[in-house]
Amino acid sequence: MERTVPVDLGRRSYQVRVGAGLLAELGPAVAAAAGDATSAVVVTDSTVADLYARPAAESMEAVGPVAVIDFPAGEANKTLATASQVLDKLFAVRPAIDRSTVIVTVGGGVVGDLGGFVAAVALRGVRFFQCPTTLLADVDASVGGKTGVDHPAGKNLIGAFHQPVGVLIDVATLRTLPAAELSSGLAECVKHAVIRDASLLDFLEDHAADVLACRQELMAELVARNVEIKSAVVSADEREAGERAHLNFGHTIGHAVEAFAGYGGLGHGQAVALGMVAACRIAVSRGLLEQESAERVEGLLARLHLPVRRPALDAEAIWQIMLHDKKTRGGQVRMVLPVMLGAAAMFDDVTPQSVRDALEYLSG
Amino acid sequence: MERTVPVDLGRRSYQVRVGAGLLAELGPAVAAAAGDATSAVVVTDSTVADLYARPAAESMEAVGPVAVIDFPAGEANKTLATASQVLDKLFAVRPAIDRSTVIVTVGGGVVGDLGGFVAAVALRGVRFFQCPTTLLADVDASVGGKTGVDHPAGKNLIGAFHQPVGVLIDVATLRTLPAAELSSGLAECVKHAVIRDASLLDFLEDHAADVLACRQELMAELVARNVEIKSAVVSADEREAGERAHLNFGHTIGHAVEAFAGYGGLGHGQAVALGMVAACRIAVSRGLLEQESAERVEGLLARLHLPVRRPALDAEAIWQIMLHDKKTRGGQVRMVLPVMLGAAAMFDDVTPQSVRDALEYLSG
Repeated sequence: MERTVPVDLGRRSYQVRVGAGLLAELGPAVAAAAGDATSAVVVTDSTVADLYARPAAESMEAVGPVAVIDFPAGEANKTLATASQVLDKLFAVRPAIDRSTVIVTVGGGVVGDLGGFVAAVALRGVRFFQCPTTLLADVDASVGGKTGVDHPAGKNLIGAFHQPVGVLIDVATLRTLPAAELSSGLAECVKHAVIRDASLLDFLEDHAADVLACRQELMAELVARNVEIKSAVVSADEREAGERAHLNFGHTIGHAVEAFAGYGGLGHGQAVALGMVAACRIAVSRGLLEQESAERVEGLLARLHLPVRRPALDAEAIWQIMLHDKKTRGGQVRMVLPVMLGAAAMFDDVTPQSVRDALEYLSG
Repeated sequence: MERTVPVDLGRRSYQVRVGAGLLAELGPAVAAAAGDATSAVVVTDSTVADLYARPAAESMEAVGPVAVIDFPAGEANKTLATASQVLDKLFAVRPAIDRSTVIVTVGGGVVGDLGGFVAAVALRGVRFFQCPTTLLADVDASVGGKTGVDHPAGKNLIGAFHQPVGVLIDVATLRTLPAAELSSGLAECVKHAVIRDASLLDFLEDHAADVLACRQELMAELVARNVEIKSAVVSADEREAGERAHLNFGHTIGHAVEAFAGYGGLGHGQAVALGMVAACRIAVSRGLLEQESAERVEGLLARLHLPVRRPALDAEAIWQIMLHDKKTRGGQVRMVLPVMLGAAAMFDDVTPQSVRDALEYLSG
């Protein structure tokens, strides 16, 4: 079964196709999304190149001449220096790229972000098509048009908004994903459920074991439902002025916990899981959320092999990190909190004490 | 006398202010164009920094904290590596930049292109304000939103469309401009006149000596008229699908002549002047343009100290360069030709023989 989710962005609208075994159809999908494309360049990383570059490139004969460019895998390589090397290779491709070339990113979040950025700036913008291969990239990075690279001063500091012309998600690629990375993507699914769709919470509870086993039909449904949620939020608010900020649920404290652990010390999804637990705790303490709802979220995260406590946390150190975050102004924290399961709102008056209490809870 | 030219681009519209002695008003102009700006970063090059960075930065107190970043002057430094260094400095500015920071470029085309590109990609896009200080940048780069850097494989291959929030042109800065650079800018003025406005040709003929002497009131009028022409063309065709291509008049052969001379061997405006002479020659040979109109263009270029002949040209070598240009398809050349003084059209059936004849004419 295949699902198609429209992302409605006016002139820049596109479709996300989700199914099992779609990789062989990548080329035809690119040709359909970019009708006048005359050549394609697949951008991928060293890990994914070994697994999927060949079938991806072979399917591309539907478009025209194809070249494959890979770069060393890993978040540490998501830099402007790597983007520069990819651009060097891109301009060395023969026949030379022009405005009818399509860049096709095949890989996880780093590949999509970096490859999308390269597409945004090559020839002042060529089209790109995304084929994400991790659950996190499927449900998060494939919708939104955020491209970019990290800088020593912070993550994603260099980038551009550049929407893909289409996205194809083959959930079969998730079977090669390490378990921790699968859980990391599931944290974002729980996030979507808590802020927008309580029935998705039911779905995850009902199928936790099968999801962890990566059952294809279930994964296709899970991914499609999450893409629908993110698409609805992004369509309503493309440049992140309002509602899109709800996607930061779990990320305010999560980012600080991730920074405290040192990048790499704790996966992104794992940090977001802890951030969601903390945010739910704050919501309960303010009387926004029932205690049993918070416990339900915690229970689901645990079943999905995500952390809900972190004894080694230093609440004071994390608070100091949050104070230096640009979202913190005047000593109060701006945070997304659930107001019930399936709905959230932004609060800009979260007190230091309630954050400290939540951090103590995490480490307790 | 000050002039204000609106650039009409819907939500991204902005104004170009032109006058003598406006540099001291740069800060207030930035504050007016970006009302909620809380800090400014001036990006400039080593040459302009010595001349104008101090007054520019001092005026910026109208906005808030200001930092100045400069990079080594020269087209050879218009690279992604330089942009990367500017980004490093940008992220080290204290207080740290955020989305309410405005980048203010003060300098010639390289500064505007590179600084604008940095603004386009920093934090996925911060606002920028342009203060061009060369005639070429005044009449060409200040309108259009093209930002970017060169790559060994070609000029401007890496970049973004990023419109400034405003432009301030102080024609007093033209008095420090070397004569050849002034003439280079005048070549673009002649181009605008030939493709869009025969009365501007009269103006240039009537005031050639005063323009070369950089008389302030005249320069303000000249710049404003040229900004109006470019603004009208760009507003009609922001993404260069059709009419905007007319701005390439003189550039097809001009670029090849420039490449033949080796970058730096012939200024951009000088090469464009030769390209315009050649294009007029082709137009005459096709019966599109009166011989005396072509002579009038040549005569004006010469009076503006621009080359109209280049004995050292190797017609065959230049033709080979053009064959490798991506605008050349199937052995025929796509070129903008004047159809009368003040109007132009695109022709995609220019024959190799007519190009060779025109090149022979240039070298004769």
